[in-house]
Amino acid sequence: MTEESVQQSKSRSRVDRLRLLLSKAGADFLLVFHLPNIQYLSGFSGSAGLLLVEPSRVTLFTDSRYTFQAIEEVADSGVTVTIAKGGLLRAAGESLKKRRRRIRVAYASPHVTVAQKRALDAAAGNSVRWVDALGLVERLRAIKDGSELALMASAAGLISEVFHFVLPRIAPGITELSLAAEIEYAMKQRGASGPSFESIVASGPRSAWAHARPSSKAIGKNELVVLDQGAILHGYCSDMTRTVFVGRAPDKVRRMYEAVLEAQEAAKSAIRPGASAAAVDRAARQVLKRHSLARFFTHSTGHGLGIEVHEMPRLGRGDRTVLEEGMVVTVEPGVYIEGVGGIRIEDDVVVTAAGAVNLTKAAREFLEL
Amino acid sequence: MTEESVQQSKSRSRVDRLRLLLSKAGADFLLVFHLPNIQYLSGFSGSAGLLLVEPSRVTLFTDSRYTFQAIEEVADSGVTVTIAKGGLLRAAGESLKKRRRRIRVAYASPHVTVAQKRALDAAAGNSVRWVDALGLVERLRAIKDGSELALMASAAGLISEVFHFVLPRIAPGITELSLAAEIEYAMKQRGASGPSFESIVASGPRSAWAHARPSSKAIGKNELVVLDQGAILHGYCSDMTRTVFVGRAPDKVRRMYEAVLEAQEAAKSAIRPGASAAAVDRAARQVLKRHSLARFFTHSTGHGLGIEVHEMPRLGRGDRTVLEEGMVVTVEPGVYIEGVGGIRIEDDVVVTAAGAVNLTKAAREFLEL
Repeated sequence: MTEESVQQSKSRSRVDRLRLLLSKAGADFLLVFHLPNIQYLSGFSGSAGLLLVEPSRVTLFTDSRYTFQAIEEVADSGVTVTIAKGGLLRAAGESLKKRRRRIRVAYASPHVTVAQKRALDAAAGNSVRWVDALGLVERLRAIKDGSELALMASAAGLISEVFHFVLPRIAPGITELSLAAEIEYAMKQRGASGPSFESIVASGPRSAWAHARPSSKAIGKNELVVLDQGAILHGYCSDMTRTVFVGRAPDKVRRMYEAVLEAQEAAKSAIRPGASAAAVDRAARQVLKRHSLARFFTHSTGHGLGIEVHEMPRLGRGDRTVLEEGMVVTVEPGVYIEGVGGIRIEDDVVVTAAGAVNLTKAAREFLEL
Repeated sequence: MTEESVQQSKSRSRVDRLRLLLSKAGADFLLVFHLPNIQYLSGFSGSAGLLLVEPSRVTLFTDSRYTFQAIEEVADSGVTVTIAKGGLLRAAGESLKKRRRRIRVAYASPHVTVAQKRALDAAAGNSVRWVDALGLVERLRAIKDGSELALMASAAGLISEVFHFVLPRIAPGITELSLAAEIEYAMKQRGASGPSFESIVASGPRSAWAHARPSSKAIGKNELVVLDQGAILHGYCSDMTRTVFVGRAPDKVRRMYEAVLEAQEAAKSAIRPGASAAAVDRAARQVLKRHSLARFFTHSTGHGLGIEVHEMPRLGRGDRTVLEEGMVVTVEPGVYIEGVGGIRIEDDVVVTAAGAVNLTKAAREFLEL
């Protein structure tokens, strides 16, 4: 097959699988609002779009700013482009109104504002019966195909390189913000279009805040430093955390580190097709419990990763998702103790028949700088 | 007054002015969803919050990740913090349900998803009559007070410095992405928390795309380069564009540049309290018309700027906003000709009794590098 035919058959098969889910949800049509879902189904990466999936065709509505980009990006996917003059919602609504019979159209209520829904209703009139259907495209996106896995391996490889490049710069006196700037500069110099999220550099007492943003605080001697960073490369995200110590670490800190690493390894070992997301989380938690650290592990063990930095599944208590081959998840246990500091170790892994395979490659051993 | 009292009286007076607008809109309460609006009214900068403005008090609902940050940030604003256990929407909805009589609660439909509205309705029951009221807080935010203007001048000064720092690096061979990375690195090294938007570097034929994203294209000899960049400093945005030529420019390009600069000056001269936003846009367009370039000016002349990079008003056809002292707007005419390239010149200005005052300071003359 030519490259074009591969691309076309890929998008077609995504849409075909989507139509199966759609019919199970009791709808014939799907109106897609969420841009990452539109990108996945059509290839379009602009900032204004609506995608209408019908039983026998797919239409992208966008505006005149994106005429050329849209035609180029969806060329191989079999999607038709409509440049909307009076707003995307009106164009999509009017297209739905033209049908002979009343149709059932699915949408996802968390991705549609009250104002958008109102404009859509005004344009579509009574011709539509709306069906609120959550996560249809997200369920497909959770399982990556071969070309997606290749792109994700590149994004993960890139961020691993960036960490090793930045490592020698972590020293007393440099501020968290400055180190975060070095990280984001280094990823862009290696071809990333940008960070997948605002890079976290949290040192000393601030390392104990799981959601710290980098500040103007300078890194001090004898401090833990948590570095959580990810890059977007060719549209796919990476997300990796490492924790280092500046100086010679007290035994207590070293033991904490070894416990977190052991918890991460236990979680990775629990990953296989057929295992539940909650079981992976439990594996990490049990190790920390044995070290009397479980109560300092205040978040879930990981999350899906792909076009977005947080996707399905969530590796946490209560998530019943059964892992499947081709899923990509982060594995990131952490402990945060006020007065001591925080330690988190995070890798991106693929679920394979042989278990978890690491995509991120940076050194995991305890580093004293 | 102590610094704390100044902060408290500032937030109070914002809320007091909001209550006036609210009562004109026919409501007693306002539920604020949009995070920049919450930050403006309470000081809270976290990523999960709902703010309930009542006739006699203001409550911030957030979750346990933000307990300490919320208490610290709203301390001086007179706002009460409630840490919601079962979700923010449920907590806010249940708080509304407890009233003795049916109340009228305003919200802004473009900032609330269908799923959020449904959760809110489920929790609040029939106790609430919802009033869709657009732009109440945005109207207040359009007019900056003294301390906001000081912060915006710093953010604009920073981006002007960054441009002069990056200028010597613009040379044949460097890629657009690499130059964009230099720009964002330089702003962070100067204290910015990040870019206000993805920096634009568009060279050669790509300079003719008003919405180009930086690519791996290397800058060539005899090309126009459009650089559109902004930094967030202390929570406020800047936004500045300069266009340079690499090599000796043909007369045609030089004349285009002079026309755009003349259009920008005409728009700035039209800015004064009492002028309409549309009149400022017209002033720029008339100059370009005289140079037979009006049809290549494909966007509006500018937009409000503040906590967000696009705020009220829009300096464009059909915007009837009357300019007031203390508004901050961008002034950014541009022409984009396929086969020749694009030129845009953008400054941030304050509306004062004496007219437009520039906040961005970088050189505006035509630069051949």
